Amino acid sequence: MKDHLQLGPGPEFDRVRAILAALGEAGAPSGDDVALLSIGGKHLALSTDVSIEGTHFLTEWLAFEEIGWRSAAAALSDLAAAGATPLGVLVALGVPKDASDADVADLMRGVGRVATEVGARVLGGDLSNAPAWTVAVTVIGDVAKPASRAGGRPGDLLYVTGELGGAHAALQMWLQQPGRAVPPEARERFVHPLPRIAAGRALSASATAMIDLSDGLAADILHLTAASNCGAEIRLDDLPVASSAIAYATAAGKDAPVFAAEGGEDYELLVALPPGLEPPILNVKLTRIGRLVEGDEVRFTSAGTPVFPKGFQHFR
Amino acid sequence: MKDHLQLGPGPEFDRVRAILAALGEAGAPSGDDVALLSIGGKHLALSTDVSIEGTHFLTEWLAFEEIGWRSAAAALSDLAAAGATPLGVLVALGVPKDASDADVADLMRGVGRVATEVGARVLGGDLSNAPAWTVAVTVIGDVAKPASRAGGRPGDLLYVTGELGGAHAALQMWLQQPGRAVPPEARERFVHPLPRIAAGRALSASATAMIDLSDGLAADILHLTAASNCGAEIRLDDLPVASSAIAYATAAGKDAPVFAAEGGEDYELLVALPPGLEPPILNVKLTRIGRLVEGDEVRFTSAGTPVFPKGFQHFR
Repeated sequence: MKDHLQLGPGPEFDRVRAILAALGEAGAPSGDDVALLSIGGKHLALSTDVSIEGTHFLTEWLAFEEIGWRSAAAALSDLAAAGATPLGVLVALGVPKDASDADVADLMRGVGRVATEVGARVLGGDLSNAPAWTVAVTVIGDVAKPASRAGGRPGDLLYVTGELGGAHAALQMWLQQPGRAVPPEARERFVHPLPRIAAGRALSASATAMIDLSDGLAADILHLTAASNCGAEIRLDDLPVASSAIAYATAAGKDAPVFAAEGGEDYELLVALPPGLEPPILNVKLTRIGRLVEGDEVRFTSAGTPVFPKGFQHFR
Repeated sequence: MKDHLQLGPGPEFDRVRAILAALGEAGAPSGDDVALLSIGGKHLALSTDVSIEGTHFLTEWLAFEEIGWRSAAAALSDLAAAGATPLGVLVALGVPKDASDADVADLMRGVGRVATEVGARVLGGDLSNAPAWTVAVTVIGDVAKPASRAGGRPGDLLYVTGELGGAHAALQMWLQQPGRAVPPEARERFVHPLPRIAAGRALSASATAMIDLSDGLAADILHLTAASNCGAEIRLDDLPVASSAIAYATAAGKDAPVFAAEGGEDYELLVALPPGLEPPILNVKLTRIGRLVEGDEVRFTSAGTPVFPKGFQHFR
């Protein structure tokens, strides 16, 4: 157990702390979503990520190809946040009794598609019976200069890639009205998130800290600031909000940037860059949303007024 | 999808074939339980293995430390069969709602203990809610000369490490009389299997083919012979049967070597060595049990008479 390991608040992280205490010397946590291993003069980054029916998705919402894609994308996104280049994917798959070989093949086709999209291959796997669809994906990549969530310094500027809130909008629509057809733009952001591999690699050259937005900006900024021993100020007015999130939040009488900051599973990157540095040119939009500050407080403002977005939880 | 990929019979393998067809070029299956990756002049071996409550174990049988140990041991055993040296372990853990942090910590303590036993560390993981305890373990190791199940040739001699049938005896006693106290020797073989890392490394120098006995000798020999394009003759009289398996089989009126050949989850190694070669000295017993032959038939004999052990299935 590393003393430098700083985690954000919440019961999930109390549990992680209990695990690290139990592991003692047997554990070698990096404090990041990826584990690092040095071999043959190279740095390898590894991450494992499990998606479970009933916790992360319902089969009524998604095609099997989509379940496979987003499960693998969630793990590959951790490599993006480390600035790593994916090499391979392994999948341990738990399959309900009544599933067909075609369902299983479709799910794995989705895994294969997102792997191909980022230049990786499916190296192996394991199949088992399970009470619910269970997709445990492990990814491995190599990385020249691993980015971490821990190196941010007061004064660094905060940026996010892409747009936020689209996946959350899709999830809210499904939850509110099961069976409802979700607009394609929101649906795509939930079912086919694209790991920001190229952007992560480009940003890692100058990033002081980086994390992917799996739990949502409001929660993930706390992990970055806790690990970096600093606070943050975020101007929600500057947040790049997906158009479907604006539409949904407006109809629901909610503030769109707050809604986007609370939503998880966008798998965009949140990065801290030193001030005075020109951000690299990426294949995706990069938006400045705030900065790191002294202290340990994270403050969100909207039109100059403090607001308090809630941390994101998976739907159950 | 590789043309050389030969799998044994059974519905699980039909499903694997459907997956490989769906993956197409996105898949890079090795045909072995481990995937191999070359990086920085080194060979890495990776394997992923999932253990699920209700499929692989019941919580009435096992302490949480034991669930963690055997789940990780199953994955580490794949590295043993490749002749690899474990470096790290990652765990994606699905946890039922009513579980305590202490249960989770105990499970991970078991993972940490078997990792330490083989010189590896727990590098990372993921936690999620799940309908049943789900332990997806991914292991990574390095290997100088990877052993495969595919290189066996007619005339090679077949050996197994350790003793067989102990885990099967424990399982049968639990199934027959739930809550029954299982004798310590049989229980230990089920709850704390020891991956044969040192033996696998020593054997890999001269092995033409190697596989770990997770599904049982009767099933796993079929994987080895299918991959090696040959048949086998196995003298069950020579099988090293665990004393608890002899006791159980005798009391149940069964032939002990057949019982041991049908039982899975011993995690011993089955290895083919060229004839005329002195087997290496190992830290575990090595017993010659038969040989590879021309053709594709696998024949078992007991006192000169053909017998037909059944393939092993997990208990559900």
